[in-house]
Amino acid sequence: MLKNKKYLFVIGLIVCNLYAFAQSSIEVYPTNWFVGMKNQNLQLMVHHPNIASGATVSLSYPGVALIKTNKVENRNYLFLDVKIASTAKPGICRIVIKKNDSTFTVNYELKKRRTGNGTQFAQGVNASDFVYLLMPDRFSNGDTTNDRIAGMRDQSLNRDSIFLRHGGDLQGVINHLDYLQHLGVTTLWMTPVLENDMPNRTEHGYAFTNHYVIEPRFGGAEKYIALSDSLHRRGMKLIQDAVYNHVGLYHFTVQDPPMKDWLHQWTTFTQTNYREQTAFDPHGAKSQEKQLADGWFTTQMPDLNQSNPYVANYLIQHAIWSVETFGVDGWRIDTYIYNDLPFMNRCNQALLDEFPKITMFGETWVHGTANQAYFADNTINAPFKSNLPGVTDFQTLFYGIQPALMQPFGWTDGVMKLYQTLSNDFLYKDASRNCIFLDNHDLSRWFSVVNEDVAKDKMGFEWLLTSRGIPQMYYGDEVLMKGVTNPDGWVRLDFPGGWNGDTASAFTGKGVSDTALSVQQLIRTLANFRKTSPALTQGKLMQYIPVDGLYVYFRYTDTQTIMCIMNTSDTEKAVSFDNYPERTTGFSGGRNVLTRQEVLPAFKIPAKQMWVVELRK
Amino acid sequence: MLKNKKYLFVIGLIVCNLYAFAQSSIEVYPTNWFVGMKNQNLQLMVHHPNIASGATVSLSYPGVALIKTNKVENRNYLFLDVKIASTAKPGICRIVIKKNDSTFTVNYELKKRRTGNGTQFAQGVNASDFVYLLMPDRFSNGDTTNDRIAGMRDQSLNRDSIFLRHGGDLQGVINHLDYLQHLGVTTLWMTPVLENDMPNRTEHGYAFTNHYVIEPRFGGAEKYIALSDSLHRRGMKLIQDAVYNHVGLYHFTVQDPPMKDWLHQWTTFTQTNYREQTAFDPHGAKSQEKQLADGWFTTQMPDLNQSNPYVANYLIQHAIWSVETFGVDGWRIDTYIYNDLPFMNRCNQALLDEFPKITMFGETWVHGTANQAYFADNTINAPFKSNLPGVTDFQTLFYGIQPALMQPFGWTDGVMKLYQTLSNDFLYKDASRNCIFLDNHDLSRWFSVVNEDVAKDKMGFEWLLTSRGIPQMYYGDEVLMKGVTNPDGWVRLDFPGGWNGDTASAFTGKGVSDTALSVQQLIRTLANFRKTSPALTQGKLMQYIPVDGLYVYFRYTDTQTIMCIMNTSDTEKAVSFDNYPERTTGFSGGRNVLTRQEVLPAFKIPAKQMWVVELRK
Repeated sequence: MLKNKKYLFVIGLIVCNLYAFAQSSIEVYPTNWFVGMKNQNLQLMVHHPNIASGATVSLSYPGVALIKTNKVENRNYLFLDVKIASTAKPGICRIVIKKNDSTFTVNYELKKRRTGNGTQFAQGVNASDFVYLLMPDRFSNGDTTNDRIAGMRDQSLNRDSIFLRHGGDLQGVINHLDYLQHLGVTTLWMTPVLENDMPNRTEHGYAFTNHYVIEPRFGGAEKYIALSDSLHRRGMKLIQDAVYNHVGLYHFTVQDPPMKDWLHQWTTFTQTNYREQTAFDPHGAKSQEKQLADGWFTTQMPDLNQSNPYVANYLIQHAIWSVETFGVDGWRIDTYIYNDLPFMNRCNQALLDEFPKITMFGETWVHGTANQAYFADNTINAPFKSNLPGVTDFQTLFYGIQPALMQPFGWTDGVMKLYQTLSNDFLYKDASRNCIFLDNHDLSRWFSVVNEDVAKDKMGFEWLLTSRGIPQMYYGDEVLMKGVTNPDGWVRLDFPGGWNGDTASAFTGKGVSDTALSVQQLIRTLANFRKTSPALTQGKLMQYIPVDGLYVYFRYTDTQTIMCIMNTSDTEKAVSFDNYPERTTGFSGGRNVLTRQEVLPAFKIPAKQMWVVELRK
Repeated sequence: MLKNKKYLFVIGLIVCNLYAFAQSSIEVYPTNWFVGMKNQNLQLMVHHPNIASGATVSLSYPGVALIKTNKVENRNYLFLDVKIASTAKPGICRIVIKKNDSTFTVNYELKKRRTGNGTQFAQGVNASDFVYLLMPDRFSNGDTTNDRIAGMRDQSLNRDSIFLRHGGDLQGVINHLDYLQHLGVTTLWMTPVLENDMPNRTEHGYAFTNHYVIEPRFGGAEKYIALSDSLHRRGMKLIQDAVYNHVGLYHFTVQDPPMKDWLHQWTTFTQTNYREQTAFDPHGAKSQEKQLADGWFTTQMPDLNQSNPYVANYLIQHAIWSVETFGVDGWRIDTYIYNDLPFMNRCNQALLDEFPKITMFGETWVHGTANQAYFADNTINAPFKSNLPGVTDFQTLFYGIQPALMQPFGWTDGVMKLYQTLSNDFLYKDASRNCIFLDNHDLSRWFSVVNEDVAKDKMGFEWLLTSRGIPQMYYGDEVLMKGVTNPDGWVRLDFPGGWNGDTASAFTGKGVSDTALSVQQLIRTLANFRKTSPALTQGKLMQYIPVDGLYVYFRYTDTQTIMCIMNTSDTEKAVSFDNYPERTTGFSGGRNVLTRQEVLPAFKIPAKQMWVVELRK
């Protein structure tokens, strides 16, 4: 269908002319801005049929100056370079666009900066947090009136199909914040909540059609702000899932492209090669690096040309606007490796300039610690230096906890891989900014990965909540939700209890097996212990060489030492404090955080168990 | 046996007293020195029964000053700090040691610096070379009179046993330099040729008993110099195999230790943990890093304490003395990761100070490119920075050519591993200084690794001679010698034709199968082509993403482009120049270097073949 993007551009212009008749008001993006931002420059995108033809633009507002009016290939767009002095006050700035036969007036609002409704925001997410990732369409339906929205392309609503809409929304999340907080969660990360007005596969949220519209089927901007405020009132935090690399095929800038090089154009449809190596390989071919970054993610997700300064401004301003408007604390960046990396550095810095405490982690679904570190703030003198603070740590998953529990122990196998991967943390400036996880919306669920072995499932969560980094869990894993990807819809099933009439509810425990409840309880106990544990939230990690499947590591500060004993083998193992002198000297024993049982300096740990022990003098 | 090294020290002192009666002349190490060295400092170790008791030392020689006489715990040693001015001339420097009842005179020779007998030396080994690794005891017996040496501990001589001596020697190597040179070899690396006066397992050479004695069973120093001169006259080069980490249990400094901390002492026998991670893991325990470096390699190989300045001087001076005395061009460093790394930096720098063009590569039998790069001159800002120019590249073997040929292709498997490993070359300052190889004296032989599949065997050699780095082959692989380690003796069998009466000879081809001869011919053709190929010896590497087992890479300079097509799959593959635009634009075809056949811009390559094609305009 999309074999030729130049063709697409022409089609876009035709569509636009039709579009013009149906359109009355002028679109301006960002939809508003703020006074008192550090960066005084703003570039407004004005979108209206034929708006640029013969247009002259003026504005008059104290402290605001129109620096330049940019006309581009498509006359339906104007780009206005504006400067907002630090003295400017909140109010309505009138922008007047005069044409031969008519005059348009835009009342552009300059708001005062967010006060956080009395709470903090943009405060950053760090290792003291515990992140819960959910898909809003699949967690809970709190408002059935928004399940279908008239006029939107996808009118599906069928919980029996993994790819159709299920009706979950932000009110559903708000309704269950008590549950999440009691589970020990401190931070919510949702798959994107921006408008995805696509004809199908709208459940995942990664195909934006308008950056400045919060998905109406989730409840829109009002509910998003309500959720943000609810979280902050509880002392919880919000992560927004950002997508810079691509948009949905029905994004207005794809349907009506401002200029030919708004998107990456190829003579025939060209997908990314998905090979991260082409970004850093000193022996790589430029043509393959270009394909990595500029190839389309899928036919439904055109690739934005971030080296186009208009595109760059559009994306960066949207990021800043989102944090300011919704009170976002942390920023997760989708498909990080497929972006234009110098653009990403600019974008990350722009966010940090406005919000110095905000944290970011990029999705780095790659294979190799050096590969992953390349895209992060690292210790490597490579020709390109990333400023991305953290990453979604696929390495501690694929080459860490997964083989630790699923592969027999060997010189380089089994839990040795976890030890080895962590040993390579010297490639990061600060690996504790990495987000660690057992699964997510793109991966087989943890319980399925461990072949539904409950003991291994629990060991995974004990690791997750005690290792270095920011732990993130995926909704429903606490009650042993199952699912294998391919297709990915099978790992995106509904959270039990999220819909009226559900026979089982993870919120109340009704209809949930004792086994599943025991996992939920383990997470609840450990995550809540973790909240006030200096060692687990701020402490250093010390790990010892695994021996025959027995892996012992410590988290510690001056005031607390937590000993973690993971027996991945099939036999009981003897453990003695003597083998870990740096961390056990001065301690006479400890207490198992989960069972509250006393632990002596020499003990035996059964096969396939992990103990988390707080040491005592 | 060696449960307690303090006990060993006491034993040593007793042994020494017995030793004293049998000993008449004074030992001084280095056995001579040179005028005109850049570093004017020299520390002489004087070894003689009770030599330090009541001794005063003096010397008188123009330009030479005795700076300090150091007495240590063991009175059988004196360490003399000497300074040799740049004005000093060659000659015999008389050192007088006066004691209460006697006077000893040492005639210490200061030689002029090596002129290389008219040839270059210390010239460095680089990617333009092709290194042949052999074990002198197992390559060829050129002098049967030195097979057993009276008075040495190991009097075995039995070619039927893999662990006993076989009689090979340096004369055997000298006899066959024509063969090696015709094979395309430019550089000889032998397992160590220093005295190993151990009671058993003396075939490998890594248990030195006196650094300043060349193994008499190999022909001694005279033959070593003859071999070096023969190589240099041919324009060939010599690598010496250095062992800093340990010595043999019967080394005189173990039998009669100069001081308690000459060796790393443990209260009970403690072996190294062999875990490289402990050296760089930011989460590691100091006790485990200490065990890595200070634990003994085996009970037969005590660990030298390189942080003891006397030990450090002893080792560094020996390295310099060896290069100067024997005309060494390259330096291979055994068990690199087990050494004291700051000492290694000093040692490497000391060699470079005297011999600016010499090259070094350290044995890094580790698992992971970051792990390996840590021990080399790398691009990583880790707390410790190594200055080691190159390494023995175990990564391109274990995670490169081995899985490329032995593992089915997958997203991260098969030849993808080779591609991936090379992509991580950004961790090295210059990966072309790494020594690449298919096997060595510690590893299963290549033909056995590929399950005696001749096609794969040949693909391995084609890769070896065309990839980046310094290619090294292991003796006998050219005629398909087989052998699997465990025990390692099975990969150290005799080279066919090296002994009188051998039924087969790889030198003449007599009794060697046609298949084996075809491998030998392949290596000979490619290695000789390589000698004059700018692309293969100095060119850059460009690699493209492997697709379904087909891996294409190029070596290129401004004047030559070599296209390497490795089809690791089980089916024929179509190849088109169009897919490699950076390197094929402007070329109309090429010629297969091995078959001399013409190659068109689009062609099919059969399953399990590799083609090396020189492109033409």
